Amino acid sequence: MVNTLIVGCGGIGTIAALNLQSGGKARVTTVLRSNYDHVKQHGFHIRSLDHGVVESFHPDTIRNTVPNLSEENIEPYRYIVCTTKNIADVPPSLSDLIRPAVTPGYSVIVLIQNGLNIEKPILDSFPQNIVLSSVSFCGSHEVGTGQIVHEDHDRASIGAFDNPNLDAQVQQKAAMDFVEIYKAGGKCSPEYQPNVGWTRWRKLLYNACLNSICAVTDLDTGRMQLADGATDNLVRPAMQEIRAAAKAYGHDLPEELVETMIRMDPITMYNPPSMQVDLRKGRYCEFETVVGEPLRAGLARGVPMPLLTALYHILRAVQWKTKERNGLVTIPEPEDHSVKR
Amino acid sequence: MVNTLIVGCGGIGTIAALNLQSGGKARVTTVLRSNYDHVKQHGFHIRSLDHGVVESFHPDTIRNTVPNLSEENIEPYRYIVCTTKNIADVPPSLSDLIRPAVTPGYSVIVLIQNGLNIEKPILDSFPQNIVLSSVSFCGSHEVGTGQIVHEDHDRASIGAFDNPNLDAQVQQKAAMDFVEIYKAGGKCSPEYQPNVGWTRWRKLLYNACLNSICAVTDLDTGRMQLADGATDNLVRPAMQEIRAAAKAYGHDLPEELVETMIRMDPITMYNPPSMQVDLRKGRYCEFETVVGEPLRAGLARGVPMPLLTALYHILRAVQWKTKERNGLVTIPEPEDHSVKR
Repeated sequence: MVNTLIVGCGGIGTIAALNLQSGGKARVTTVLRSNYDHVKQHGFHIRSLDHGVVESFHPDTIRNTVPNLSEENIEPYRYIVCTTKNIADVPPSLSDLIRPAVTPGYSVIVLIQNGLNIEKPILDSFPQNIVLSSVSFCGSHEVGTGQIVHEDHDRASIGAFDNPNLDAQVQQKAAMDFVEIYKAGGKCSPEYQPNVGWTRWRKLLYNACLNSICAVTDLDTGRMQLADGATDNLVRPAMQEIRAAAKAYGHDLPEELVETMIRMDPITMYNPPSMQVDLRKGRYCEFETVVGEPLRAGLARGVPMPLLTALYHILRAVQWKTKERNGLVTIPEPEDHSVKR
Repeated sequence: MVNTLIVGCGGIGTIAALNLQSGGKARVTTVLRSNYDHVKQHGFHIRSLDHGVVESFHPDTIRNTVPNLSEENIEPYRYIVCTTKNIADVPPSLSDLIRPAVTPGYSVIVLIQNGLNIEKPILDSFPQNIVLSSVSFCGSHEVGTGQIVHEDHDRASIGAFDNPNLDAQVQQKAAMDFVEIYKAGGKCSPEYQPNVGWTRWRKLLYNACLNSICAVTDLDTGRMQLADGATDNLVRPAMQEIRAAAKAYGHDLPEELVETMIRMDPITMYNPPSMQVDLRKGRYCEFETVVGEPLRAGLARGVPMPLLTALYHILRAVQWKTKERNGLVTIPEPEDHSVKR
């Protein structure tokens, strides 16, 4: 049994926990925040395309803090699976969050997170650790406290981010091992995919474009397909910009992928992607890793990206407003300008 | 006394009514909708930078329908002042709305409305009538039913749209007469400005850019000046696109106007421009005349306008959603995709 920690247990983390635990090869500890009390008592209620209805799923261990291995007598974690949102512009950083649980040179850090360049701060913080990438279209949401609805088959693409301090084969082996542990329950079909860059740029077609445009317009992916000209004038041109940026980094995303991504969610699912959900709930969204990083990457290689630039700065403005609401930004008091005399 | 009709009596229309009636040269009939009962009984309560506090303003005549001159025994209106929103993509058209009150060849139709090319459908419908343009930064809002807060001096620029069927001097005279009637009360300072195109493109710097970007980000004009990079990366580039489009039509908008417009609203006013207010209230916004028309005009003359293109299509998607909410658009029923087995 591989000792495994899952940090962040919303829609994606819970399905990961269920896959890992039901396979019987991992002992799963989950770190919960807002849903801790509820799940500790009742477990998760899950309606899943892969697993059917699971009335009450209890991870092996449920915690409300990240384990601190220097203070607690806990077996080191071999895999630390991170499924939190990656809000690069709002502290704490993921590195700071997981640091107490990481055993240098031993723990394999798995990032089941969106966006580009997300491994860089992790590798900076943990230069002797293997860091894996897992990319999936596991459309899974926590629709109420501890209530998970999972609407896309979990077909994760798993590979190692290149850590130049470590042997490449050792990193590959860790990725392949994780695939085996993850799929042991037989309910999902993850694949080892060594071309992590290609995999991540491919998903950016969805996330940098559909996800961000849904967030900005507050149209879900079904309505986006129905609304006047939205797909033709927003989604497709944005995806072409991402294709061009990916190409500048050697990743050839076939033209057909554009249509695949546009129609990935059936219209009648009316699926609000993650950033749209975040904005609806007044939460921070991960626009920096999902839009900002590919935009900066593309611009750095001279790729024109006018639409992504607009989307990025709109989302940045929206994020600023969320920061203001949360007290991270303060503004001058309002004054009455209506009557001067 | 010049018989004058005002159609639409929200923030802008009420200040126009007050200016016209208090000057003593116009007999004012107003057409109200949602605030009719309240205003009929209590009048408007106005807090105005130009007029001070007006506890109860009663227009000479208050109606809840557009007068129908073919059915009612009413003196023809010399001026028909239109201060409704101009929602070009949602019926009824302004022409259809005012048609029963228009006397062909006599009524002067005054458009105190935002946007470009708004006179075209009016001239098509009323080819023998003079149509005037009034452009103002009269920041006036109906903050509650019949409650008007007016925060910018009303310095309207008034001129005639060119009606090629009529004598130019007669059109000019009608515009100059209207200026006199409008300013007779001494509380505002409208100007006769024959270069209507320049005046309207100038205001588009504010409306196509700040107004639309505030609407899309839901940041007011104060927060727009405070938020990370929003002015530099959204507002200024959009204004440069409008300057370039205006230039393509022979209108030279000086560079300094960009900063003037950005700082027109003091930060501490935290002013939500009209389209932002509309979206907050779930209403249609006038993005077609304010963003769509200048965009189409610029593109028709080969001006690159990538940011305005993005803003236009985002607002179009948002408008589609409002149409869906109001039943103008219907969509397929949702289906449950979470559990297939």
